[in-house]
Amino acid sequence: MVETTRHTIDTSGQGDVHDLTAIVARVLSASSIKSGLLTIAVVGSTAGITTIEFEPGAVADLNRVYEQLAPRDGEYEHHLRWGDDNGSSHVRAALLGPSLTVPFAERKLTLGTWQQIVLLEMDTRPRRREIVVQIVGE
Amino acid sequence: MVETTRHTIDTSGQGDVHDLTAIVARVLSASSIKSGLLTIAVVGSTAGITTIEFEPGAVADLNRVYEQLAPRDGEYEHHLRWGDDNGSSHVRAALLGPSLTVPFAERKLTLGTWQQIVLLEMDTRPRRREIVVQIVGE
Amino acid sequence: MVETTRHTIDTSGQGDVHDLTAIVARVLSASSIKSGLLTIAVVGSTAGITTIEFEPGAVADLNRVYEQLAPRDGEYEHHLRWGDDNGSSHVRAALLGPSLTVPFAERKLTLGTWQQIVLLEMDTRPRRREIVVQIVGE
Repeated sequence: MVETTRHTIDTSGQGDVHDLTAIVARVLSASSIKSGLLTIAVVGSTAGITTIEFEPGAVADLNRVYEQLAPRDGEYEHHLRWGDDNGSSHVRAALLGPSLTVPFAERKLTLGTWQQIVLLEMDTRPRRREIVVQIVGE
Repeated sequence: MVETTRHTIDTSGQGDVHDLTAIVARVLSASSIKSGLLTIAVVGSTAGITTIEFEPGAVADLNRVYEQLAPRDGEYEHHLRWGDDNGSSHVRAALLGPSLTVPFAERKLTLGTWQQIVLLEMDTRPRRREIVVQIVGE
Repeated sequence: MVETTRHTIDTSGQGDVHDLTAIVARVLSASSIKSGLLTIAVVGSTAGITTIEFEPGAVADLNRVYEQLAPRDGEYEHHLRWGDDNGSSHVRAALLGPSLTVPFAERKLTLGTWQQIVLLEMDTRPRRREIVVQIVGE
């Protein structure tokens, strides 16, 4: 069995991090699938999905490391070619990937107590993000 | 239902990036599975799969950041132990991972218009890469 | 069909890397599912799963790059807020992600000969880790 749901999140731009755990838990509790794989994906090439202990300190630390890896105001060939300013966003998103897959059993994800599924906005401007939650199982 | 297809890509070595989106779209359009999960994996420990806006600027920016993270001509214990020269390849590939999972519905992947699935060759020499596309769904 | 197995690994703390390939191979060989997707996930926000050529040199190289990215003794807001010392662990785990999905066919994973599935312990203290292996297929 397969179930697809789509969700919309409005972000404020680079460094904005949204906890998606409640959305995913609602999908699972409303589903007729008890056990299987859940994939959560963000549509687009300037955002990513991962897990983190969702508290402001850890989120700030993660953002600081991304800023060191691919500084927002750095020089990017993507800017020269397209007149864009989001080369840092493309690099960060490619390094992380747009999706996360988590097992679930008895309608419960195999996550820790202090582990939340998050959307990382990496684009330099506010975006309306489409999130897809796909469940495959029985 | 499960469908497995295998594909071969010849690469020119570290920094070579191949757009796999057309391969994946062909697999989906020929499949009897309409909705589910698609995993695309590269066999081997010196390459990776992700998504990016596939244009030369963004690709060059990504390669530059990988070169900063794990320089090709850096010193690696892997070199000392094995006489190899691809320590940078192993580190980059482990940081990214060898596979990507994307939901699909109505035989269409949940990707953005400017978001392509790509193979990143990280090895220091040309390689013939085996790509596996696995579809599970209904 | 879906099959869930759970496994326990005791780690010695940050930088400890465990080869999980034998565990996963045993799960597959004992399964009634021949072909599909296998997701392996670690429960918690301070560890990760990836693949690498599991030899001490490559493992040391990977650990060194993580130490450059998010130094263990660096300054983290997570420390200031919670009195913890594992800000580096949270950042590293978020960059990598807690799970890996690999296709399998004829009960065999699509991995290379020198490519092992590994658990990366990123926390600063020894941990007892719960690993979940989820198989979906037919």
